[in-house]
Amino acid sequence: MPECAVVLLSGGLDSTTAAALARREGWRLYGLTLRYGQVHAHEIDAARRVAAALGFERHIELDVDLRAFGGSALTGDGEVPTDRPLDSSEIPATYVPARNTVFLALALAWAETLSAARIVIGVNALDYSGYPDCRPEYIAAFEYVASLATRRAIQGHPIRIWAPLQQLTKAGIIRIGLELGVDYGLTHSCYAPGPDGRPCARCDSCRLRARGFAEAGVADPLLSPTG
Amino acid sequence: MPECAVVLLSGGLDSTTAAALARREGWRLYGLTLRYGQVHAHEIDAARRVAAALGFERHIELDVDLRAFGGSALTGDGEVPTDRPLDSSEIPATYVPARNTVFLALALAWAETLSAARIVIGVNALDYSGYPDCRPEYIAAFEYVASLATRRAIQGHPIRIWAPLQQLTKAGIIRIGLELGVDYGLTHSCYAPGPDGRPCARCDSCRLRARGFAEAGVADPLLSPTG
Repeated sequence: MPECAVVLLSGGLDSTTAAALARREGWRLYGLTLRYGQVHAHEIDAARRVAAALGFERHIELDVDLRAFGGSALTGDGEVPTDRPLDSSEIPATYVPARNTVFLALALAWAETLSAARIVIGVNALDYSGYPDCRPEYIAAFEYVASLATRRAIQGHPIRIWAPLQQLTKAGIIRIGLELGVDYGLTHSCYAPGPDGRPCARCDSCRLRARGFAEAGVADPLLSPTG
Repeated sequence: MPECAVVLLSGGLDSTTAAALARREGWRLYGLTLRYGQVHAHEIDAARRVAAALGFERHIELDVDLRAFGGSALTGDGEVPTDRPLDSSEIPATYVPARNTVFLALALAWAETLSAARIVIGVNALDYSGYPDCRPEYIAAFEYVASLATRRAIQGHPIRIWAPLQQLTKAGIIRIGLELGVDYGLTHSCYAPGPDGRPCARCDSCRLRARGFAEAGVADPLLSPTG
């Protein structure tokens, strides 16, 4: 019986590719999507499509309303910035305080009850948006917490945090995903989509995605006439 | 202006005493109580009473339903054990998978938006119930995550995890709380109370509390005729 992995699945390009990589390695996938108060629901829909397409064993959507704390353009505090320099080292207004720590903590809770050996997270340290909780040293520190935090860990079964995209550019991620047969038309990346879900093309996330597809030399199926 | 501290407030004896210690040190207190799917609501009521009595600036009750993952008697999976040897090294059925990691992660999110310098948590390593996420090495590891995870931390303002009860026995905690004027009649400890909130007297939490009051040589106001 293959081992279980909990996948933090946002429905975006990165988490979808990370999930496809885990599936290729033979893991049984359990998807966790957090409804944390995003201003739009399109990414939840994308997560459902991806979980179905990749044959997840189970997909949980959990509510944890980070709007209670505020502090991010992604949860309704202020505007999503547009046309920002992509390689700025400044942390943008779309940063959600401690989001990855909250997500990893919840994934850890589920991983323990599933006896899962891995948590899969699609962070990448290159072509990212300057978020502190996407850095490799952060992921390593959380993995150390996971090694101490749980019953299974102290019984000799630590839960690893697997971040296979960490050292990849967006173009590299897209190339790998296409090799694995990922349909990026199912995914959603935009921080500020129109009412029909169409990407804005101006937020950091849209522009990193566009640069990735351009560098990979392929068209983004989301933007193609039939997308 | 005194600095802000986020207090993880369950309404139990430990978190109440930790909050009272932080207040004595002059911190402005922001209480966070998680409704994580406890099988009873009496501890939420206790948290409200304590937050009011200790003059919290604000008190947030946040829903994060850990029943979605299962795996604990405290969230409805199986019975709360009674009359268990208190100094057993076995992890009991009341262990909630990764609960403190989830709680600390959410406290970290709020601490960042408040620009708080501390998270206060009432864990103690002696007279505890064998939970892996109450151990000092676990708390230290989470503090290291907090030092990497947030915008404020990488700008030179790390958020400390303050666990002032870590090396105290239950009796020691009670003595300190009484010196600080804590009214333990406001608190709630029982894992399996009656419908009126009366403690069962048989779960680990009731028995650790009873042993603490006995060793401190004082009566528990919850159990007194007027309690």
